[in-house]
Amino acid sequence: MAKIKIKRERIKFASDNVAGACPEVLDAILKANDGDSTPYGNDPISTELQNKFSEIFEKEVIVFPTASGTAANALALSTMTPSYGNIYCHKMSHINTDECGAPEFYTGGGKLVTLNGIMGKITAEELDESIGGKGIVHHTQPSSVSITQVCETGEVYQLDEIKKISDVAHKHNLNIHMDGARFANALVSLDTTPAEMTWKSGIDVLSFGATKNGCLAAEAIIFFKKELVGDIAFLMKRAGHLLSKMRFVSAQLDAYISNDVWLRNAKHANKMGKKLSDGLSKHNDIKIAYPTEANEVFAKFPRNKIEHLNSEGYKMNEEELNGKAVRLVAAWNTKDGDVDQLLDTLKNSN
Amino acid sequence: MAKIKIKRERIKFASDNVAGACPEVLDAILKANDGDSTPYGNDPISTELQNKFSEIFEKEVIVFPTASGTAANALALSTMTPSYGNIYCHKMSHINTDECGAPEFYTGGGKLVTLNGIMGKITAEELDESIGGKGIVHHTQPSSVSITQVCETGEVYQLDEIKKISDVAHKHNLNIHMDGARFANALVSLDTTPAEMTWKSGIDVLSFGATKNGCLAAEAIIFFKKELVGDIAFLMKRAGHLLSKMRFVSAQLDAYISNDVWLRNAKHANKMGKKLSDGLSKHNDIKIAYPTEANEVFAKFPRNKIEHLNSEGYKMNEEELNGKAVRLVAAWNTKDGDVDQLLDTLKNSN
Amino acid sequence: MAKIKIKRERIKFASDNVAGACPEVLDAILKANDGDSTPYGNDPISTELQNKFSEIFEKEVIVFPTASGTAANALALSTMTPSYGNIYCHKMSHINTDECGAPEFYTGGGKLVTLNGIMGKITAEELDESIGGKGIVHHTQPSSVSITQVCETGEVYQLDEIKKISDVAHKHNLNIHMDGARFANALVSLDTTPAEMTWKSGIDVLSFGATKNGCLAAEAIIFFKKELVGDIAFLMKRAGHLLSKMRFVSAQLDAYISNDVWLRNAKHANKMGKKLSDGLSKHNDIKIAYPTEANEVFAKFPRNKIEHLNSEGYKMNEEELNGKAVRLVAAWNTKDGDVDQLLDTLKNSN
Amino acid sequence: MAKIKIKRERIKFASDNVAGACPEVLDAILKANDGDSTPYGNDPISTELQNKFSEIFEKEVIVFPTASGTAANALALSTMTPSYGNIYCHKMSHINTDECGAPEFYTGGGKLVTLNGIMGKITAEELDESIGGKGIVHHTQPSSVSITQVCETGEVYQLDEIKKISDVAHKHNLNIHMDGARFANALVSLDTTPAEMTWKSGIDVLSFGATKNGCLAAEAIIFFKKELVGDIAFLMKRAGHLLSKMRFVSAQLDAYISNDVWLRNAKHANKMGKKLSDGLSKHNDIKIAYPTEANEVFAKFPRNKIEHLNSEGYKMNEEELNGKAVRLVAAWNTKDGDVDQLLDTLKNSN
Repeated sequence: MAKIKIKRERIKFASDNVAGACPEVLDAILKANDGDSTPYGNDPISTELQNKFSEIFEKEVIVFPTASGTAANALALSTMTPSYGNIYCHKMSHINTDECGAPEFYTGGGKLVTLNGIMGKITAEELDESIGGKGIVHHTQPSSVSITQVCETGEVYQLDEIKKISDVAHKHNLNIHMDGARFANALVSLDTTPAEMTWKSGIDVLSFGATKNGCLAAEAIIFFKKELVGDIAFLMKRAGHLLSKMRFVSAQLDAYISNDVWLRNAKHANKMGKKLSDGLSKHNDIKIAYPTEANEVFAKFPRNKIEHLNSEGYKMNEEELNGKAVRLVAAWNTKDGDVDQLLDTLKNSN
Repeated sequence: MAKIKIKRERIKFASDNVAGACPEVLDAILKANDGDSTPYGNDPISTELQNKFSEIFEKEVIVFPTASGTAANALALSTMTPSYGNIYCHKMSHINTDECGAPEFYTGGGKLVTLNGIMGKITAEELDESIGGKGIVHHTQPSSVSITQVCETGEVYQLDEIKKISDVAHKHNLNIHMDGARFANALVSLDTTPAEMTWKSGIDVLSFGATKNGCLAAEAIIFFKKELVGDIAFLMKRAGHLLSKMRFVSAQLDAYISNDVWLRNAKHANKMGKKLSDGLSKHNDIKIAYPTEANEVFAKFPRNKIEHLNSEGYKMNEEELNGKAVRLVAAWNTKDGDVDQLLDTLKNSN
Repeated sequence: MAKIKIKRERIKFASDNVAGACPEVLDAILKANDGDSTPYGNDPISTELQNKFSEIFEKEVIVFPTASGTAANALALSTMTPSYGNIYCHKMSHINTDECGAPEFYTGGGKLVTLNGIMGKITAEELDESIGGKGIVHHTQPSSVSITQVCETGEVYQLDEIKKISDVAHKHNLNIHMDGARFANALVSLDTTPAEMTWKSGIDVLSFGATKNGCLAAEAIIFFKKELVGDIAFLMKRAGHLLSKMRFVSAQLDAYISNDVWLRNAKHANKMGKKLSDGLSKHNDIKIAYPTEANEVFAKFPRNKIEHLNSEGYKMNEEELNGKAVRLVAAWNTKDGDVDQLLDTLKNSN
Repeated sequence: MAKIKIKRERIKFASDNVAGACPEVLDAILKANDGDSTPYGNDPISTELQNKFSEIFEKEVIVFPTASGTAANALALSTMTPSYGNIYCHKMSHINTDECGAPEFYTGGGKLVTLNGIMGKITAEELDESIGGKGIVHHTQPSSVSITQVCETGEVYQLDEIKKISDVAHKHNLNIHMDGARFANALVSLDTTPAEMTWKSGIDVLSFGATKNGCLAAEAIIFFKKELVGDIAFLMKRAGHLLSKMRFVSAQLDAYISNDVWLRNAKHANKMGKKLSDGLSKHNDIKIAYPTEANEVFAKFPRNKIEHLNSEGYKMNEEELNGKAVRLVAAWNTKDGDVDQLLDTLKNSN
């Protein structure tokens, strides 16, 4: 592949997307490969997914599988935001900083209005104050809100926080989207139900992430309001995101949400994150930057420790977006020994 | 998945995208899953792909793997076509009729100028006559040409035809793209080399298809001219087509182009196509609509025969785009018995 | 101004846009300049325009003045056509050939599906046959129809022709737009009412042209169906077409449609066109290419006559779009003597 | 005209766009109307404009007249900003808050990265710190900078401030645009030359405003770097901003920049602004919010004074964008008596 400049090259704890797929997901792909099947999502696995997700969310939902989280976010937002619309989001949000302008591309030029928030979360109050200009032809128009769960600092929105933000959005007739790239990690962190964390708290559309937590390339756009689906089927096709052999994306999702695979994976990743966070916090010169509430740990290291870790093969840079905090991410396949090894390496640093 | 209306539901011979992946490709995915790896195409498999494709094409090429053929086409065209640019193509071309306007979306509003061609192919002469208005501010500007190989009628462009069309394109300072969704099928049909069928015949950018011929979801945009690469890396990311676990797309391509897997698969599919075509042509009331030059057979059936086939479980409709001709497609996994069975079923029709 | 390449440089009869504004329109601008006024179309002249146009069209219409015909067309079409939509139009239509892709820009990538028509007009039959693929996710979606009145060959659609085309459009749930750049010329040619030539014949949205027939820069988008207005106010502003001192555009339109100015101007231009056409048709070696039904004359000249005219200062090229026919256009300010002079010049050619 | 909701309806001092055109400009329009002329900016007035602006700016510049300031800004920015590009600007800038997303529309989805600035101006330091992520595929790419002169708080950038900001822009290989909607007002305020305030201070492209200071509808995009012109001619046409009777826009600009009309108008407007500001500042309970450096006065009034003014026919609201400050704008046609009257009215308030 052509050399695309990316932010860094490091493996263990670099991100949860360095991990491969879990065995259950791989098995599902192999099984789906048996025999011919109708293309473009009209196969039995894909159509059945509709029901399975509806069960999980305790509501009839409408599901569109995709292979890409960025596409899921941007497509979801494009059904809720006209070309002259405002999307309110945290200034550090993935849609604002890490998708190379995908929401702007898919909405035909929408504007991301960024909020400062408190740490990684936006607040209902700041959102409320930011929304204005409705109906005035000179101004881009308030259209939608997007929050990230787990958010970009590793914190998890509490149910009442989501509810308050949704209430403000709906008060202004905006729709609200949740970027759930780490949906399962947030869910098990809050020990709540998918329904409670989404539509029961006011969420209208969800990007349901699965790639980071055990799939190869599988996400789902989930609509809790049918009227928001709009023309997304055409927009997906038009963007090249309606894969012909869609059954293989659907098969991943099917295996992922069956038999608690997703919850088990997420619980494990969170546990490893916690273990890592606890270990780091024992060092006086390492400061945990944000509460470790899921599988991501943000910590400020002294320069010598970073250099030592890098000299030992870890590839960690200081994060631009989070000031001086380094991000370490545990995945579904992180082992106790992996955490121990990193902590041991740190001990030998001085 | 939500109900997306699609053209038809039928399995055997419906298309080559109803087939799953071949064993070599599946094995590669399993193997790639072993251990963590750098995301976004900076893993060893993805970077090595650059060299492997360069070998195959006997030239240093620049390769961008994608999971979607529509995306490959539209992204490729977007590097060669400004928002006010003309893309010259056959009126039946996939980019014009079957991608829901993806080239228009990715170019920001480019215009597909359609040519009538002779059967499924455009001609150098018609292209030459159609190009005009260059530099005149009132007119959309001639920018690029796209041909499909194997083309939409199952015919294969001969090398001298490609060369003549490329010459016209280059004479007018346009770049030329090949939609190679069935690249391997054309290649083995012509019994030529990848280099001969592309850059040696003037092609500037290729959408290299692999999904239909044995992969799950893997295509590649291949640039023969470095200066055309432009900003495609940003555009891919922006469109949600830079998958985080890109290694799994690359692994499919790697296996596909190794050990002649792709050529073997294509030869078999073409052979099955030929067998089917020969069998059909023995019926006086069935008319082969276009020469069967690869793995696609277009034939006009009497209505009673179609009804009989459908009653026996085949799901075939009359094709809109090709007048009254039904399209039957053989795939890498079509068996001799599959062809025999269809032909036998026909014999019992009257 | 920077050198923009344009098609030709010639003055008399080159186009009706080489003429300036008529006295009534200029007076209205001077009068509107007296005193301060509310900007952005909220001045009394602009708001009153709504009523004046409603009277003229015998129906409550919604009017958006603009300074540009291309903008009027593209904005009108953008309210009726999604980014993945088809606009059906004549292959020679101004929106397809002379607006540098404005409809594609404003719709976010819509597709102009071109019809061959008979001479310069599309037919209801060809339109009906061309519309297809509705609801199928692979295909761009039938959305709107646009006809030009006076059309690009100088012919005028008859009322029953408009009605038949509108009926087909509505049968397929498409909306229909009329590009009325020479609306007045068509109107007086048909000797009918504005209502009959538009909404009573099924037209949904009109680009009402005034610039060519006596204004400086003034057009109007006129909606006959309120529900089609959509977000056009935001789109206009967003495109920079909501002028701050809009009153001066509105003042032109006000004067233009008052006291039969527009009808008088158009009748005169048509009369001069007829006189020119009649004069030309007396030459055996000049062939009138299309019926002269308004103020445009299309004629095939022998090369020596063109050269003679050019040597005498006329600047006329062979028209690309109309094969070998030269277009000569009479305007509101064309004098009998202008026509006589051209005809005399021709007589002296051999 | 259809009811477009706008922010407020008030006349005197509401904005400088409530004024009509000055006599010299009107005369020029009348004069330009005499005789036929080549359309689309190929008339003598338009072509000569190129030289006249080059003289004024002491450099060969490339000029594109437009009828709209929003279009001038967005078109200018679109030549310097790809669809995935960042435009750095003040959070209160007109392009960010008052053009309904025009820059996003014309760039195909660019991102406005907003700076807090100090009062109404951005600073070189904040700009420098904000630029990042260059070459990293996940991030939108730093592309251009835009400053407004006179800025949105009525302050004027000093030459050294412009120079420092330009230096930062160029250090990062960004191009820099000046929104000069009130260019003349800034120029006479600084008592400098057009060259000094633009390219000699590093500006690459200018939106030269004329509408607010004595024209009907006339602005100009002025390129100081030829290589930035790019495809703007096509983009203008495509957006419907290449008017057919362009000579009338050019004639306005011609008269405006001839015989010091523009400077005289601006000096007068600034003088009236100063007089108003001085008068207001004599009230203890009125606070001038920003230094009055050109023709705009921002002042915080006690509620009872606003109510009194409104009861006397002034239509002033508290400005959203500037907190609690009311904006009062003097124009080229503001009379001493207008200022006296407002101040007298205030005296009678208590």
